[in-house]
Amino acid sequence: MSIKTIEWRGDRVIMIDQRRLPLEERYIECDDYLSVAEAIKAMVIRGAPAIGVAAAMGIALGGQRIKSRNFSGFFQQLEEICEIMKQTRPTAVNLFWAIERMKRLCWNNQKANIDTLKELLRKEALKIFEEDEQINRQIGINGRELIKDSDTILTHCNAGALATAGYGTALGVIRAAYEQGKTIEVYADETRPFLQGARLTTWELMKIGIPVTLITDSMAAYFMKKGKINLVVVGADRIAGNGDLANKIGTYGVAVLAQHHRLPFYVAAPSSTLDLSLVSGEEIPIEERGSEEVTQLFGQQIAPDGVRVRNPAFDVTPGQYITAIITEKGVARPPYNKSLRELLGRRE
Amino acid sequence: MSIKTIEWRGDRVIMIDQRRLPLEERYIECDDYLSVAEAIKAMVIRGAPAIGVAAAMGIALGGQRIKSRNFSGFFQQLEEICEIMKQTRPTAVNLFWAIERMKRLCWNNQKANIDTLKELLRKEALKIFEEDEQINRQIGINGRELIKDSDTILTHCNAGALATAGYGTALGVIRAAYEQGKTIEVYADETRPFLQGARLTTWELMKIGIPVTLITDSMAAYFMKKGKINLVVVGADRIAGNGDLANKIGTYGVAVLAQHHRLPFYVAAPSSTLDLSLVSGEEIPIEERGSEEVTQLFGQQIAPDGVRVRNPAFDVTPGQYITAIITEKGVARPPYNKSLRELLGRRE
Repeated sequence: MSIKTIEWRGDRVIMIDQRRLPLEERYIECDDYLSVAEAIKAMVIRGAPAIGVAAAMGIALGGQRIKSRNFSGFFQQLEEICEIMKQTRPTAVNLFWAIERMKRLCWNNQKANIDTLKELLRKEALKIFEEDEQINRQIGINGRELIKDSDTILTHCNAGALATAGYGTALGVIRAAYEQGKTIEVYADETRPFLQGARLTTWELMKIGIPVTLITDSMAAYFMKKGKINLVVVGADRIAGNGDLANKIGTYGVAVLAQHHRLPFYVAAPSSTLDLSLVSGEEIPIEERGSEEVTQLFGQQIAPDGVRVRNPAFDVTPGQYITAIITEKGVARPPYNKSLRELLGRRE
Repeated sequence: MSIKTIEWRGDRVIMIDQRRLPLEERYIECDDYLSVAEAIKAMVIRGAPAIGVAAAMGIALGGQRIKSRNFSGFFQQLEEICEIMKQTRPTAVNLFWAIERMKRLCWNNQKANIDTLKELLRKEALKIFEEDEQINRQIGINGRELIKDSDTILTHCNAGALATAGYGTALGVIRAAYEQGKTIEVYADETRPFLQGARLTTWELMKIGIPVTLITDSMAAYFMKKGKINLVVVGADRIAGNGDLANKIGTYGVAVLAQHHRLPFYVAAPSSTLDLSLVSGEEIPIEERGSEEVTQLFGQQIAPDGVRVRNPAFDVTPGQYITAIITEKGVARPPYNKSLRELLGRRE
């Protein structure tokens, strides 16, 4: 992928505007933390790991501009920036994970002078960015053995390079299998309403050269019944202690259909997506977004004016539908209450 | 509904252009059978019963222009018109049913003079049109008892007035329950790729005044799991002898999800949709339409240029997922091999 999802350049954070892809490759330059927060909210950047990276960069950017010269004043203002970052999107836990990491770094360096602190924050954000791609490559290595030669893989939404700092989680597993020389094919759900599948997953896979077929979300069951699909791989926005998965709306339906057709259903995510503080997925907050995402596409109206709309952006797939969870620390299988804890205990 | 799906006026067939709804109420005037065939193919008019009516009117229109003054010449040309009508869309059996009915009428009136024959054809097309609305109202009466007060009903695609000569099949059942005074609510799947749910079902229900909420196809599972949906009602394009149902792509997935969540899944259709010549749904031809229906919306590109697309317009839902089939002749329940035959044997 020659295109960068997000980048720190000089004193700015640059992101490709994912709302315009694949029609235009337009970049957004954020020169303060508020515009980073706005970009996350508006889905200029999306995908749980990428949101984490963006939040870290936003906080680092905000940190550079803090005027206070003593730690307590600095930390208080950094906390305010973190609070605003937290308000952007509620479901992906990577956001909160990255915010906590940045805050902890600051807290752990109370003795440092303020300029050093600013530099440490900038470096930590870049480290989160760099680690993310390495983690994805390790997820790919851990997951690629689950894909056999000549498999056709269904994926939902976009868990690719655009959803991360690079390489991808679900698409990382697919790429790693492809890079091993396996002959594979991908079916991409278009993923209404935001069309991450139609706009982003197809675009990424076409750039890499992995054969991809675009279908509407409603066609997944048809191709499963026809025996065309061999397995499903998706990303994750948050995984609870029992393996319950919050991911893009429609994931739960795909998981039910996969189970019904006896197909493996895999989840690929960095361990920062695990939220073992939650007993089950019932506790994960589900973001409901504006109705215009459903009634308009690139400004084109597609439904009657004033129609009532529901637009939950995520759903929760209970752990019992998930064959395995692929992380950089290894592959967890049921019972997840046990296996996820064991995984987090491991050193990478 | 003040708007007419299709109408015979003078020597023309007038249809509302369903591709432009709800943005514009544009009418198409067909003054020969070829433009009727083209309108069916291009989905100016769609919905199995409406396609049947349009084909009958198209044949009647074609019949008016036949120059031959002897029966065998006339019949031969009528058969050629029928052949062209048959090529329009392969899945909905109502098309073939209406064509056969028009041809049989002609064949049964070999002694009539040619002008009388032309008049008979015109009258038969109008009869098919008028019967259709009456049949729908009877489907409504037969089906409304399956809907309880305060039910929320999920429907997929549009099986309303716009899919028929008037009133609707699946929406006819919903309307009949509403007209009984039941407090009901509808969730409408947007129904990609053609968006019949977003564009047509919401529009019809808003006109009638039945509360409707638009969701993407991928949200149906979410709302079923939340306990928001009480039952599903859909229309049908063809029903085989064992109850296997061909209907709009996505129906099969909804049926699997309904069964998984223990929700009744009802099908509403005129008996002309039954094709007992077919042992199972495996024999029903499934139309695959152009990729631009998936990659473009009102001319707006939404996927990368040149992406590979699959676009089956229908799927087959095996009879074992169907709680009951509601027709104008009564309600059939499993085993359908027996109940559908009994139903067709009944006088209306």
